[in-house]
Amino acid sequence: MADKSSYKKVLVVHGPNLNLLGQREPDIYGHQSLDEIDTKLKALGKDLGLQVESFQSNHEGVIVDRIQLAVGSCDGMLINPAAYTHTSVAIRDALSLLDIPVVEIHLSNIYKREPFRHQSLIADIAAARISGFGGRGYLLGLQGLAGLIE
Amino acid sequence: MADKSSYKKVLVVHGPNLNLLGQREPDIYGHQSLDEIDTKLKALGKDLGLQVESFQSNHEGVIVDRIQLAVGSCDGMLINPAAYTHTSVAIRDALSLLDIPVVEIHLSNIYKREPFRHQSLIADIAAARISGFGGRGYLLGLQGLAGLIE
Amino acid sequence: MADKSSYKKVLVVHGPNLNLLGQREPDIYGHQSLDEIDTKLKALGKDLGLQVESFQSNHEGVIVDRIQLAVGSCDGMLINPAAYTHTSVAIRDALSLLDIPVVEIHLSNIYKREPFRHQSLIADIAAARISGFGGRGYLLGLQGLAGLIE
Amino acid sequence: MADKSSYKKVLVVHGPNLNLLGQREPDIYGHQSLDEIDTKLKALGKDLGLQVESFQSNHEGVIVDRIQLAVGSCDGMLINPAAYTHTSVAIRDALSLLDIPVVEIHLSNIYKREPFRHQSLIADIAAARISGFGGRGYLLGLQGLAGLIE
Amino acid sequence: MADKSSYKKVLVVHGPNLNLLGQREPDIYGHQSLDEIDTKLKALGKDLGLQVESFQSNHEGVIVDRIQLAVGSCDGMLINPAAYTHTSVAIRDALSLLDIPVVEIHLSNIYKREPFRHQSLIADIAAARISGFGGRGYLLGLQGLAGLIE
Amino acid sequence: MADKSSYKKVLVVHGPNLNLLGQREPDIYGHQSLDEIDTKLKALGKDLGLQVESFQSNHEGVIVDRIQLAVGSCDGMLINPAAYTHTSVAIRDALSLLDIPVVEIHLSNIYKREPFRHQSLIADIAAARISGFGGRGYLLGLQGLAGLIE
Amino acid sequence: MADKSSYKKVLVVHGPNLNLLGQREPDIYGHQSLDEIDTKLKALGKDLGLQVESFQSNHEGVIVDRIQLAVGSCDGMLINPAAYTHTSVAIRDALSLLDIPVVEIHLSNIYKREPFRHQSLIADIAAARISGFGGRGYLLGLQGLAGLIE
Amino acid sequence: MADKSSYKKVLVVHGPNLNLLGQREPDIYGHQSLDEIDTKLKALGKDLGLQVESFQSNHEGVIVDRIQLAVGSCDGMLINPAAYTHTSVAIRDALSLLDIPVVEIHLSNIYKREPFRHQSLIADIAAARISGFGGRGYLLGLQGLAGLIE
Amino acid sequence: MADKSSYKKVLVVHGPNLNLLGQREPDIYGHQSLDEIDTKLKALGKDLGLQVESFQSNHEGVIVDRIQLAVGSCDGMLINPAAYTHTSVAIRDALSLLDIPVVEIHLSNIYKREPFRHQSLIADIAAARISGFGGRGYLLGLQGLAGLIE
Amino acid sequence: MADKSSYKKVLVVHGPNLNLLGQREPDIYGHQSLDEIDTKLKALGKDLGLQVESFQSNHEGVIVDRIQLAVGSCDGMLINPAAYTHTSVAIRDALSLLDIPVVEIHLSNIYKREPFRHQSLIADIAAARISGFGGRGYLLGLQGLAGLIE
Amino acid sequence: MADKSSYKKVLVVHGPNLNLLGQREPDIYGHQSLDEIDTKLKALGKDLGLQVESFQSNHEGVIVDRIQLAVGSCDGMLINPAAYTHTSVAIRDALSLLDIPVVEIHLSNIYKREPFRHQSLIADIAAARISGFGGRGYLLGLQGLAGLIE
Amino acid sequence: MADKSSYKKVLVVHGPNLNLLGQREPDIYGHQSLDEIDTKLKALGKDLGLQVESFQSNHEGVIVDRIQLAVGSCDGMLINPAAYTHTSVAIRDALSLLDIPVVEIHLSNIYKREPFRHQSLIADIAAARISGFGGRGYLLGLQGLAGLIE
Repeated sequence: MADKSSYKKVLVVHGPNLNLLGQREPDIYGHQSLDEIDTKLKALGKDLGLQVESFQSNHEGVIVDRIQLAVGSCDGMLINPAAYTHTSVAIRDALSLLDIPVVEIHLSNIYKREPFRHQSLIADIAAARISGFGGRGYLLGLQGLAGLIE
Repeated sequence: MADKSSYKKVLVVHGPNLNLLGQREPDIYGHQSLDEIDTKLKALGKDLGLQVESFQSNHEGVIVDRIQLAVGSCDGMLINPAAYTHTSVAIRDALSLLDIPVVEIHLSNIYKREPFRHQSLIADIAAARISGFGGRGYLLGLQGLAGLIE
Repeated sequence: MADKSSYKKVLVVHGPNLNLLGQREPDIYGHQSLDEIDTKLKALGKDLGLQVESFQSNHEGVIVDRIQLAVGSCDGMLINPAAYTHTSVAIRDALSLLDIPVVEIHLSNIYKREPFRHQSLIADIAAARISGFGGRGYLLGLQGLAGLIE
Repeated sequence: MADKSSYKKVLVVHGPNLNLLGQREPDIYGHQSLDEIDTKLKALGKDLGLQVESFQSNHEGVIVDRIQLAVGSCDGMLINPAAYTHTSVAIRDALSLLDIPVVEIHLSNIYKREPFRHQSLIADIAAARISGFGGRGYLLGLQGLAGLIE
Repeated sequence: MADKSSYKKVLVVHGPNLNLLGQREPDIYGHQSLDEIDTKLKALGKDLGLQVESFQSNHEGVIVDRIQLAVGSCDGMLINPAAYTHTSVAIRDALSLLDIPVVEIHLSNIYKREPFRHQSLIADIAAARISGFGGRGYLLGLQGLAGLIE
Repeated sequence: MADKSSYKKVLVVHGPNLNLLGQREPDIYGHQSLDEIDTKLKALGKDLGLQVESFQSNHEGVIVDRIQLAVGSCDGMLINPAAYTHTSVAIRDALSLLDIPVVEIHLSNIYKREPFRHQSLIADIAAARISGFGGRGYLLGLQGLAGLIE
Repeated sequence: MADKSSYKKVLVVHGPNLNLLGQREPDIYGHQSLDEIDTKLKALGKDLGLQVESFQSNHEGVIVDRIQLAVGSCDGMLINPAAYTHTSVAIRDALSLLDIPVVEIHLSNIYKREPFRHQSLIADIAAARISGFGGRGYLLGLQGLAGLIE
Repeated sequence: MADKSSYKKVLVVHGPNLNLLGQREPDIYGHQSLDEIDTKLKALGKDLGLQVESFQSNHEGVIVDRIQLAVGSCDGMLINPAAYTHTSVAIRDALSLLDIPVVEIHLSNIYKREPFRHQSLIADIAAARISGFGGRGYLLGLQGLAGLIE
Repeated sequence: MADKSSYKKVLVVHGPNLNLLGQREPDIYGHQSLDEIDTKLKALGKDLGLQVESFQSNHEGVIVDRIQLAVGSCDGMLINPAAYTHTSVAIRDALSLLDIPVVEIHLSNIYKREPFRHQSLIADIAAARISGFGGRGYLLGLQGLAGLIE
Repeated sequence: MADKSSYKKVLVVHGPNLNLLGQREPDIYGHQSLDEIDTKLKALGKDLGLQVESFQSNHEGVIVDRIQLAVGSCDGMLINPAAYTHTSVAIRDALSLLDIPVVEIHLSNIYKREPFRHQSLIADIAAARISGFGGRGYLLGLQGLAGLIE
Repeated sequence: MADKSSYKKVLVVHGPNLNLLGQREPDIYGHQSLDEIDTKLKALGKDLGLQVESFQSNHEGVIVDRIQLAVGSCDGMLINPAAYTHTSVAIRDALSLLDIPVVEIHLSNIYKREPFRHQSLIADIAAARISGFGGRGYLLGLQGLAGLIE
Repeated sequence: MADKSSYKKVLVVHGPNLNLLGQREPDIYGHQSLDEIDTKLKALGKDLGLQVESFQSNHEGVIVDRIQLAVGSCDGMLINPAAYTHTSVAIRDALSLLDIPVVEIHLSNIYKREPFRHQSLIADIAAARISGFGGRGYLLGLQGLAGLIE
């Protein structure tokens, strides 16, 4: 395990309605809460030499604000933009201000859902994308991100 | 009239720019203010055995927050998503977390307006929809909602 | 209650296949028959000072004929164009000959059904629209229409 | 003027809502009634050696029936399919059973109206087309048809 | 051969312009008249233990009326909706009221004709579909329908 | 016949490739030359009290120049924009500078030809439109124009 | 029954994944195996004076090779192109090299399935088409093909 | 220079991510910071007799709130809606509540960028539009706005 | 003010129908003539150290010829392509031969007009774009161009 | 080499902006001037027994005029319509007046360029097409044309 | 580590052109060869208690054959369909015959490439999807698949 | 003529159904067999100092295999992908692995055929393209390729 002071920093951004994860529609999104996922991410981060910080908001503007703060202070980002994947040019523009690798996560297989969920304003801005593994997708994403940061 | 403690709870959500209702473009939206409409809704609610609470915001994220609070605490919802009808997947996703009947209200006949107003991200999530009756549409919607709650 | 001779006249037009209402696909359209709905409409009309006459046909041309007769003899119209909502320019043209308020009713939430049902040739010609309340939608529509006639 | 027994026969078909011509929306359709137009057509027909018979219906099926009767008994046709221009494959199919020249008439300039009126199911089946001259368009059409019949 | 009283009942519905079959455009539709086809269908029905009744109309509404009568009184249906294949939601809705197998027949290969004939409002409501065999397609359809009824 | 000095002036504009009329593809465009048509138009104009001047060019810009000269000096216009019907916003803009009636003429039935000929940049700017009568269409157009000028 | 040496030859081509017929997804494709269907086709062929040969491959190129061999050696073809219906121009081109009647078969009602299955690259090249009868559709197709070969 | 008390008031609204102007992607957006631009706008405003106030937010709802405050208190508006140009009906609706001239500014030439940036929900609500001049575009816009306010 | 011999040269290109500016449709295009605008441009040019030459044509080819002459002889260009904005690839290609900054001007807000005016073949070739300020837009454009030339 | 008097005549038409060939954007269009290409074409023509005449214009109308002159006087045509490939119905119509083989040439690979260059109004009128060989494409085209003329 | 006899079996399917991985276009696809990736997958499989078998083909039909063999003999599948992602309904149909979890892998971020690569015929059939991590994506996919198999 | 050992190598790839060239549909594809074309190509190759090898397959995968073998062993390629032009991303991907010039050949003028033949997955990957010259197009292509190889 690496010396903590040399840890790379990773910001995890959870988009709208993810704060209720595990409470509603578990057949689509699984039974884990967001806190449980964040705890696992922090633990896995330690193993990978990454300091993981998590953030959730239902507000597009607040997410834009938070991504801007990552400029110059983070080394990688996991983002599940949820509903804003399909509608937010503002988040896209904020992400394109970063020059760190960004990995996009989706819990469900969005290709089995409504057609408007097949369109993304984020996918070509992110470095990589994982969908359909439920909460486990975040952990796979963090592993992959570790490789992209190196 | 029912005993107040047994009243069903109804949340009324007014979307962006509706706070200025009655002040601007009255030929499209009518002369009533939002307060006047809310007062009438509360009064009608009493007759129907419904406790009505109203809420307005111009912020998509704040509306999502408020809808989430309705999970488990409300028995029905009236929503006029206004501009967010056409652009907010986040509000759609929040509404789909509820398992209470939702009635969508529009003051004007949206089919007489710009083509982008003909598309809705909410209509297939709501149980029913009323448009074109001006402020009176809320009252018809509350009556209809009372039937759906039973 | 108003003096009957001063009653406003309202024509209710039911489109194709609505004659079988209540007999088939009750999960979509409900258990009420068209006669039951018409009886309730007449009763509610009395309370509102409206003389209600109902009409059903499976024939586009017969519906056009009947709407034309309303020119100059009716004060308002409720219409559920059913299948013709999506295909009949002729009914649209007949409705646009009227200068009385027209309220369009749909029993089901048409936005949960096939995409071709999302397109309407009537919606921008009608003053207002109600969908998704089942048979109760007609009663709400008559109340709303009463307000538009005044 | 030709001997009447040798007159060519022309059927004039008027589509839905044209029976109210002159009574409603005169700024779009003019002040002449359909009877006045038919009278002028008969008179002009005489000058041209044509026996003119007129027919109007709001019913697609009745118009199909009438066009079928023209097979073998008429020498030319004027048709203003009105609303059915845009929706009736059945009338198109009936017209394609004929081997006589058909001239399509529209009173208004349909290109100034709703986009769905710009599409026609008849135009490529007809020999020629006249639009925008109001009732006078029928007379020009009969003159043109006389030339096509020769 | 089955006892006649136990025969299953089959309704054959012929759509608009098929009454002229054999008289016009034989290179597309063949030389047989509709009567000849109906006679062959009745004969084949006998062999298959099916009582066949035929019906033709050029009127969409009349066809809707007739299909409604089949509810509860028929065991299977052959339908050639002709032009209404592409334009009639009303016939689609009437067919979806039935819970008997419906076989859709087209005389010509509709995929060699105009693009609007490639779209169907009936095909996903019918159980099966046959096209391109001319009048013989009805006979194949009746055989296939016999299997679906069992 | 009117006194010549009081004649209304009509400009006839023929678009590109019409100078070869009668020489090529007579099955589509007929055997008459443009000169023959212009001669007949002048003669018919006399009968109608109209002074007819004709003009042909293959150049979009030259046609725009000529239409501009008609501002204030002509009382009506016949135009066959030919190929420029489908591609020239410049001619459309020039025509919209006029406040005289404009009648658009097409020799052939453009709806039987390539799909790009079904789109027009002129049709909603013109008052009326005639197609499919060959050279005779100009004469019908001049008669119709005479009525519009009055 | 005809003398075998004078039998017409029919090739039956089964496309990709049909080799597993009867083993998987029987609710869509039925319980019969491909061998059972081929045995029935051979038997029916004998009654009809047809010598039936069957062929299956999952490879587009192998199917093209086999169709080419039919040039000059077969009198008719039944083909169920399965997945290649929607994607193979190569099979279309091979079929268009033949001058024998081709009947296209689909087991399921493809119009009840994904939209991309509604598009066909084969349908306008085939003479006729049968869908939705399961394995029985092949037998109906062979009967129909017998008529087309005569 | 005008007396300050008589100055017209202009609100400048900067949309999401513009707070980082000059720090990131200077090849697209230039090297000036938003503060530098606002300072220049205030100075130019003085010369033009305009009192300029600037405002930036990443939040759609906050921008809507601020535009509403301009009702009755401002005489003109410069707005660079940035990402919200393409996605915000709410800002469009707020702007349409104003009856003062609005000038839309874009730093970059949006027509050289992704196709979704070519669509605007604001352009037909604004009086005028300037794009591609970088920060200087605001100054040109203020000059132009001064003319529109007069 | 700079020494005239060192003045940069700017060509102003006015497209079709702009020669009639001020005479027709002043509610859309304003009351100034093209000469008045050109005079103001020359005067403003002097202040900015720019030698301004103006050119107008209704002919696409003549405009192409003139733009070609600017290769190597001009330092910047203002162009209002008017109708050719939407239809001329030839002007686009000529402009792309230049390596000087080009500013595109439109008098009216083209986004309030017909949909075909929303598409541009020039916008991504020009450096910057101004629309909706009437004749004043040229002056703002010249100021902006001065900055781009430096 | 053939006797010159019996030489077939070939017209080479170069479209807009090709007069600057070799001077601008040589990485796309190559370093040869149009004169050099024309000289090589004349020389190659001699070897092939063809008399080659070249023509260039930036004006659509002038090109139409020139193509018309080829009617009856030329035996084959090479045309590089450049920008007019995508916008000129007038040139298409002029080419369709010819009954000689026409070969369309493009210097660059137009499929690597903007999407609007992938659409052609000429390609289905020409007999053959060559693109992507730079100036050498004309020489290949002339060889191919020689074969088509025979 | 699990007992080998109880290992679950995983098939890895590599689509067309992946056999050349590492040799060409390493900036898009990375420097690892397919053998190196397969070796790593086998090793990781051991750790996860999975027996990994790999397979590559450029032939759609061969891939279909191989997927069919997995029916009943495999517990999970990793597939990188490469080019066939966008064109093969046959592979989709073969995959839908399986009832084991399938994970779809793409080396590159397909959303940064040509638009036709954004459409997938596989994505809604697969359980999950990983793209953009290069060869490492297979390893993440195997980990995720292990979870889905449990 | 060059020394054979220094000959550049050219692979000619013929796609599906071209093995039957000359035997079927000669009005579209001509009377030459593929062998005759290949013989002429070899002979012309000798004159140009090119060693020509030809290859034909109906199998997409086999063509991909063969193109891969050309990596590092060929100096140029002629390919007529036939049906796979419109459907094969796999062949496109294989071609993009090459860094030699590729010339695409089509025998017929594909723009006169079905619309799906107007779309190509190969054209922007190839250096140049020739269509419409029949078998001669291969010879012109080889000449052009010789120039591109130099």
